[in-house]
Formats: sequence, structure tokens, C-alpha cells
Amino acid sequence: MKIGEYLIQAVQDAGAGHVFGIQGDYVLKFYEMLYNSPLKLINTTDEASAGFAADAYSRIKGFGAVCVTYGVGGLNLVNSIAEAYAELSPVLVISGAPGVMERMEGASLHHKVHDFDFQLKIFSEITIAHAVINDAGTASDEINRVIYAVKKHKKPGYIELPRDMVLVEAEAPHKTFYDDDMRDDKALDECLKEALYMTGKAQRPVIAAGVEIHRYGLEKEVLALIEKSGFPFFSGVLGKSVISEKHPQFIGVYSGGMSSDYVREIISKADCFLLLGPMITDFSTGMFTSDIEVSRSITVNEGMVSISRHTYRNIGMKEFIKRLTAEWERPKPVLDIQWREPFREFIPATGEKISVKRLFECIDGFIGDDDIVVAEAGDAMFGSLDLCIHGSTEYISPAFYASLGFAVPASVGVQMASPGRCAIVLTGDGGFQFNAMMLSVSVKYGLNPIVIVLNNNGYGLFRPLADGGFNDIPDWNYAEIPKVIGSGLGFKVATEIDLVLALDKARKNTSSPTIIDVRIDRNDISDTTKRLLDRLKKRV
Amino acid sequence: MKIGEYLIQAVQDAGAGHVFGIQGDYVLKFYEMLYNSPLKLINTTDEASAGFAADAYSRIKGFGAVCVTYGVGGLNLVNSIAEAYAELSPVLVISGAPGVMERMEGASLHHKVHDFDFQLKIFSEITIAHAVINDAGTASDEINRVIYAVKKHKKPGYIELPRDMVLVEAEAPHKTFYDDDMRDDKALDECLKEALYMTGKAQRPVIAAGVEIHRYGLEKEVLALIEKSGFPFFSGVLGKSVISEKHPQFIGVYSGGMSSDYVREIISKADCFLLLGPMITDFSTGMFTSDIEVSRSITVNEGMVSISRHTYRNIGMKEFIKRLTAEWERPKPVLDIQWREPFREFIPATGEKISVKRLFECIDGFIGDDDIVVAEAGDAMFGSLDLCIHGSTEYISPAFYASLGFAVPASVGVQMASPGRCAIVLTGDGGFQFNAMMLSVSVKYGLNPIVIVLNNNGYGLFRPLADGGFNDIPDWNYAEIPKVIGSGLGFKVATEIDLVLALDKARKNTSSPTIIDVRIDRNDISDTTKRLLDRLKKRV
Repeated sequence: MKIGEYLIQAVQDAGAGHVFGIQGDYVLKFYEMLYNSPLKLINTTDEASAGFAADAYSRIKGFGAVCVTYGVGGLNLVNSIAEAYAELSPVLVISGAPGVMERMEGASLHHKVHDFDFQLKIFSEITIAHAVINDAGTASDEINRVIYAVKKHKKPGYIELPRDMVLVEAEAPHKTFYDDDMRDDKALDECLKEALYMTGKAQRPVIAAGVEIHRYGLEKEVLALIEKSGFPFFSGVLGKSVISEKHPQFIGVYSGGMSSDYVREIISKADCFLLLGPMITDFSTGMFTSDIEVSRSITVNEGMVSISRHTYRNIGMKEFIKRLTAEWERPKPVLDIQWREPFREFIPATGEKISVKRLFECIDGFIGDDDIVVAEAGDAMFGSLDLCIHGSTEYISPAFYASLGFAVPASVGVQMASPGRCAIVLTGDGGFQFNAMMLSVSVKYGLNPIVIVLNNNGYGLFRPLADGGFNDIPDWNYAEIPKVIGSGLGFKVATEIDLVLALDKARKNTSSPTIIDVRIDRNDISDTTKRLLDRLKKRV
Repeated sequence: MKIGEYLIQAVQDAGAGHVFGIQGDYVLKFYEMLYNSPLKLINTTDEASAGFAADAYSRIKGFGAVCVTYGVGGLNLVNSIAEAYAELSPVLVISGAPGVMERMEGASLHHKVHDFDFQLKIFSEITIAHAVINDAGTASDEINRVIYAVKKHKKPGYIELPRDMVLVEAEAPHKTFYDDDMRDDKALDECLKEALYMTGKAQRPVIAAGVEIHRYGLEKEVLALIEKSGFPFFSGVLGKSVISEKHPQFIGVYSGGMSSDYVREIISKADCFLLLGPMITDFSTGMFTSDIEVSRSITVNEGMVSISRHTYRNIGMKEFIKRLTAEWERPKPVLDIQWREPFREFIPATGEKISVKRLFECIDGFIGDDDIVVAEAGDAMFGSLDLCIHGSTEYISPAFYASLGFAVPASVGVQMASPGRCAIVLTGDGGFQFNAMMLSVSVKYGLNPIVIVLNNNGYGLFRPLADGGFNDIPDWNYAEIPKVIGSGLGFKVATEIDLVLALDKARKNTSSPTIIDVRIDRNDISDTTKRLLDRLKKRV
């Protein structure tokens, strides 16, 4: 088997059915092979978009891949792969490269910056494992090693494939990669005993379903614990929708002072926190204003459980959650808390100009069971934290790294990973301008994202922090984009009724993108963002 | 003076009048300061485009700057700054960052990938000097050091400014940076003597005006030598238009087997090469098919002169060229070579479908004295190598690093650096799709680039190497883009006469962009590219 073929097989075995990217002469031979393989090749408009599409795809499928050329291709991926690293997304980067023999000549080849290793060095900062495939004897082992690490650590990996190695016969792997997790059974016993005692005596306990639950695929295990315990549960910003938000025990997304009143009140009164797979960041804590008391917390991450201020190591998250559920004996608590109220049906007021608050209420009613919401960083993301997401992992956003330009490319990845489901893209106009034209790729593949643009003519999030002309952006006619990309519907709306009518038409459009340009007031922002800005002001 | 103010003053002193970029909360305080400074802030649609705009601006002005936020901003710049590094463009990158005090807390702040230094480490691979400004006592020295290195080495530099340092008072610089060039006067004497001897006895000598001549601003010195010597001269791909191509001694761009017949013939017969400031790459040598004999060459780069196979070090390029000119005594050669023929006036054949060859002939006649041609990598670049550029440094392209997405953003940089001059953008459809919408920034600032899209519906350059669906791209209606961005003219042309009519309207449009979508045959490519592909085939 040739090295290129081995790599293609390994990517399939790891769970990907698609590969995103753009070709170039250093990767052309491998592209030809990919094109003729069972993997479906999805060309994007630019590599940065390919990275975001692969990231979103990986979040849903548990593994994804992006394939680009050397230098000009690889370096365009740096930001999106950094996002995947920061937010635990298992993406494999495959980059073409000058041939091993070309390297020996040491010449100045196009796309090269200085030495041949510059791209490897850069990617070593943003990937968990990396390899240059320059030896047929170790090629399969190296490919296996990188993919194994990606899947284990839920972080990106990097494989650089010199163009003269694609057709070289690969030797069979010498090594098998065993599960090398360290496990300490006695620590698990002791930790469980303490966790059961602590949860057992709690009067007002809550559970958190964090992002690692999704990344490690433990949704069912956590749901079983939630239901056996009867505890109310919340999610963090990055873990939003890990468990269906229609679940009767769900109380909302919690992020410190940024959260809505009802969830803040429950958390402030809680006396025990069982935090399952959380990721603690500035955003997840509302700029460090969380009321979650460490001394009352059991914090469970992959490999490690902390109770109050002491830590048990070498504990599997899955084993812990399963054992905890199995040994759970505490009766369900009597709940006197107020559950999250479902939003009322949205009835548009005729002629009323749409506000951000009403826009989100409208979207809340619009979201269906099979929709996947993709939110762009900014008010589109913060404002959408209180939307009710129906199914598990039907909300995707860069809620920590927070790069712009994510949402539209991500919707392509989402719709490739989940055929037949609609992607509802919530984006600000600033983020949309990064790569709105990736919608031409949606057109190419017959995808039907519904893009809702919160158009306040600029970087509205920053206006309260520091205003100046730099927060304003060119005023595009977003509704005209379908004329350029050859297909799709476009609407420009300013009133509640027009929004509802446009959404109705969008829902019926099953074969092409819909863009709804929602003109909102320049200074209108969501309540969540307002609360965040109060905190950010102190730091800017 | 505050550190932020000092930095702004230093950027102005270095020669920039504009700063390109996009803000973010880690750089917001500095943006406010920039916005209220004499520097003009140019917001782009995305950071990658800001990098290209600043790169092109720097190539014209000798210094430029781009300013972005931490992580999501900085990492989007990596590819464009790598290009600036590879192609000797003096761009200063200024990145906001978490505050020094925030770093001490060690928290997970948004946009952070792992440790706080990840961005610095990545930029250390693609910049010649870098600094994190975290100490008021050394801030001005560090700023001076980085800017000095950028201007000296004609490569990018990186300054990371934590947000809590912007308003801190900077101490005055402790150190002055002297010109630290090592100069060896005796080596210069010996080298000159040998160069004068070698050129003196040559029968068929030629001069090359390379890219370093432009970067080090030695156009006048080289022109004086060319005219005193009477030697014919050519340029390399990256140095195209360093000296006006209307000069009677100019014989064209030479790049080995990729070049046109007439220049190849002259070079193959030449018996002495005086190569001034060349950069030797795969493209510049037509994939290593150059007929330039090392044993007959005097190769002059900054700091170093090689004659045949021996090298003199510590020689200033400027001193060498000036002394060589001053001591030149050799009579002008009798030239029996055939000069580059000027293209005939372009007379469109009615109804004739436009070919790539005829397109370039048409453009050759269209280019005016004050136009600056910006070419995107691909056939737009290779095909345009034989265009006659009227003035000095009126042709800009990424002729080594060859990243896509360069031309449109670069045209913004070019027009900011050269007010009142028209930018003629030559791009393929693949490259144009990377960031066509940067034209909305041209609209915002009243710029009038003329964008000529060589539309063969895909990556035409790769089709002869390896064809497959991956070379085809979504078919946009480029002429409709003005409808989205709110201003500009758009034309879709397929015949020679329509092209001429569209160019005529474009020339009269002085206040907004013009897009001319030139529909060419799927497999039509320029002669230069054909010759390149013959060479590339052996490597892919």
C-alpha cells in the first residue's frame, strides 16, 4: 500500500468521510488520490475557511481532516487550527510539502519562507502531535501516532507529506498503539466515596454538563446520572447543548455575572456543584465572576477529579461518571427552584422595528428539533446563549477562542457531517464580512444554511468600550449576495413582521442558502453582552 | 510620552502614514489612540487582507504597519507576514495582547491557545526581530530595535503590546542604534578591480536589476550604471519594473526556460552577467533552467559580492554600485541584439472570443504611465511578466512566495501609498475568491482599482498537472459584486471588443472599483505558464 493510500485509509478509519481544503502543486498528487478515494473532497474558497469547516465537522463527527498545500496553504490555516486546539476539536491537518529529494538540494522553492521546517515549527505550537513523513519505514507508524493523539486528546494533529513520498510503498506498522491511560483504581474508590458523601448531604445541588462531555462522547452517561440524581443541571458556554436543553431538569447556561437572573440565582444558592467536563475560562466564568465555590465543587475532567481543593489523578472521566451513577443512592431532591421558562410563542408586532432582544425571542421559537445553530463570536454568540436548543450538540460556537469568520464555513462542515439537517447561522455583520462568500460552497453542494446577520453596521460589541470610526464597517447589501453566487434567497428586514416572513421562506428553501440581513439599531445589544461588557470595561 | 504614543511616533518616523488592521478588545485602547493620531487607520474585512495591504504598502513606501488583536487577529496574519518575510517587505506587525498583570494570573483568557507566548513563538519564525513590550524602562529601546531591524533587513518585525502598557509612561531610549554594518574597504577595492576587469573584456555583457535594488532604494544608482555602461539589462520575476521597462536598453524579464524566446536568446549568448540585487528562486530561474553561468557572473547582494565561485563579504551594495559606475571606463558595447519589440496597438477583432494571449496584449496597450499593476499568483502573474511597465516599481506581485488572496488587498495598500494612481489588478478567479470583497474597502475609501479577472472557472494552472473536480470552483457572477458592496462597475466580457469597451469605461471611472470578468477558455493559459508547467510536471 502506498503512503498516500495508507493515510487516506487511516483518515477513514478514524471516522472522517470528508476532507476540506484547497490544492496546490505540493499536494497535487495526493489530491488526485483523495479525489479518487471514498473520502469526499470539499473545496473551500480559502484555507482559513477550510480549517473552520473541518473544525465544526470534527466537533460533530469526533474526527475531521483538512488538506492543503505547503506555506501559502498551511499558514492560512494557523488561526482556525489554533481555535481547534483551544476548544478541543480533533482535526487532522495534512499538508503537502516539497519532496524529500528537493529538500536535500536546499534550494529556494516557492512558498518557502526560510528553512524547510518553518511550517512544522509553527504547527508544533498549535497541534498535539506532528510528523513529517519522510521515511517509508516509519510512515505508517507516524500516521498512526498522530491520529491516535488527535483522537485521544481531542486536539489537532499535523502530518506533512512531502510530494515525493505519496506514491512510495509504506511498510506495515511496527507498533500498535495501546490505550496508555494511567488509571489508579484506589484513587477512584476513594474519590467516589468522597463524592458520594458530598453529594449525599447537599440540600441544593446542581450538575454542570461541560464541553468535555461532548468531546469524549459521554452524553448518555451524564444524562443517566442527571436523571438518576434528579439534580438540576446547567451547561457552560462552550458546552452549550451537550444535553438537550428541553430536558425538564435543565436550568440554562451559566457564565457568572454574564448569565440571566434565573440561573444566577439558582447557582448563588446552590451548596454543591458536580461539574462534569468543564472548561474554566474568562468567558465561561463571565470574566471571573462565577459564584461556583471551589470548596463545594466536585470537578471532573478527563484523567483528573478535584474535590474542593484537593485532586485525584489518573481517573477516567467515563469510569467515574458510570460508577457514580451506579452507586448513587441519594434520594432525588425536592426542587423548589424555578425552572427556565420556555419562551412564549413569538407574535410579531406589525411595523415594529426589530430589537436584538426580540430577534432572539423570534429565533428561539423558530429553531426546530433537527436544526443545528452555529453562532459567530460577538453578540450573535453571547445573545444566543439563552436560546433553547432542542437536541444534543445542536449548538456550535467558538465560545472560548472566539475567532471571527467561523460561522459560515462551520455551517458547511456541520451540514456535511449531518446530512439533511438545517444549519442556522447567527452572525454579526463584522464576522460575516470575513468570509460570507463561503456560501458559494454551500451553493455548490446544495446546502441550505439560514444565515441571520445581526447588522448593526460594525463591531457593535466594541462601541461601548471605545468608539471611533474603526468600529464601523462597509455597508454591504447582504441580500444581494445570491446574485453573485448564483443561487439562494436574500432578504433585508427591519421589522418583526418582515423577519417572520423571511424566516418562513427560509424554512421552505431546502436547496440553497438564505441570507436574512436584519437591520438593528447601531447600539442595540443583547442583555448577556451588556453584562459581559460591564466586566470587560475594567480590563480594556 | 506614553508607550502607545511613542510607538505611534516611531511608526511615523519610520515612514508610514497608514496602519492597516482590525481591532479587538486586547488592542482597543491602542486603536483609540491610533484613531486620534496623524496615522490613518484602514480597516479591512479580515486580518489576512490587512497583512497583504500592509505588505504592498511597504513595498512602495519602504515601511508599513499592520495592527491587530491577540490570537484571532495575529494568527490570521501569519500567511501574509510570511510572504513579506520571503519577499523582503518591511512590515511592522503590532499586536495587542492580554495585560502584563492579567498574564500573572495565568488564567484562560479568550483568544489564548495555551501559554501566553504562543503568538510570539509563531511570529519569531516569520519576523526578523520581535519584542513583547512589558517594561516601561525598555519599551522605547525595544520599539526602536525592532523598527531598526525591519528597515535594515527589509523583513517584517513583531511588537506585542499588552493592553495595560499602552498608557504607561515610556522612559526615553537608553541606546541609540548606529549603523552596525560591517564594511571591508580593502575587499571592496579588490572586488571592484576584478569586476572592472571582467566587465571590461566582455563582448556580450548584460546587467540584471533585481528585487533588492528596489528594496534598498538603489534605482537611481543602478540606472546610472546601466546608462554609463550601455549594457542591455533585464529584471528577475520578483524585481520586475525596478527600472522602467520603457528604457531602450531593457530586454525583458528573464526566468530561465520560462522566459520568452527573445530574452532567452540574448542570455544564452551573453558572456558576462552583472547581477545587481537578485533573488535566486525556483520561479526566478524557471525551475532551475537558467542559462546564467556562475563562472561568468558578478552577483551583488546587500553585504556581499560573488564573482564566479568566490565571495567578497562586508561590501555595501550601494557603495559597490556607485564606485563601479564612477570607475567605469569601458566603452559602450556595440549591440547587435534584438531589443524587445513593443507590442503593437491592440485592435480588437469584432466578435472574436478573447484568448489569454490577446488579453495580455490588450492590457499591455492599456497600461498608462501612472498605473500600478498588481498581479495575483497564477497565470495572472506569469502571463503578465512580459507586460511593459512604464515607470519604476509599478508592478507588484508575490513572485516567490506566491500566496493567493494577495492582489485585491494589495491594491488597497498600493492606492493608499500612491494617492491618485490607478491600480490595475490582474487576478485569476481562484485567487479572487479568497477575498474579492476587500473591494468594499476600496469603495469605503473612494479608491478605483480596475480588477481584471482571468476567469477559466477554476485553478487552471493545475489542470495540465493533475485534473479533477478539485480544480473547478463555484461560478460567481463577479460583475454583480458592485451590487453587494454598494458601488462600482461590473462587466462580464467574452470577446475582444467587449473587453476594450469595458476597459474604456473602467478608465473613466475614477471614484469606485471596476470588475471585469473575462471569460476565457477553461484550458487557455499564457505561453509563459505553459513553459513553467513543462518544468513543474517533473516535480509534482
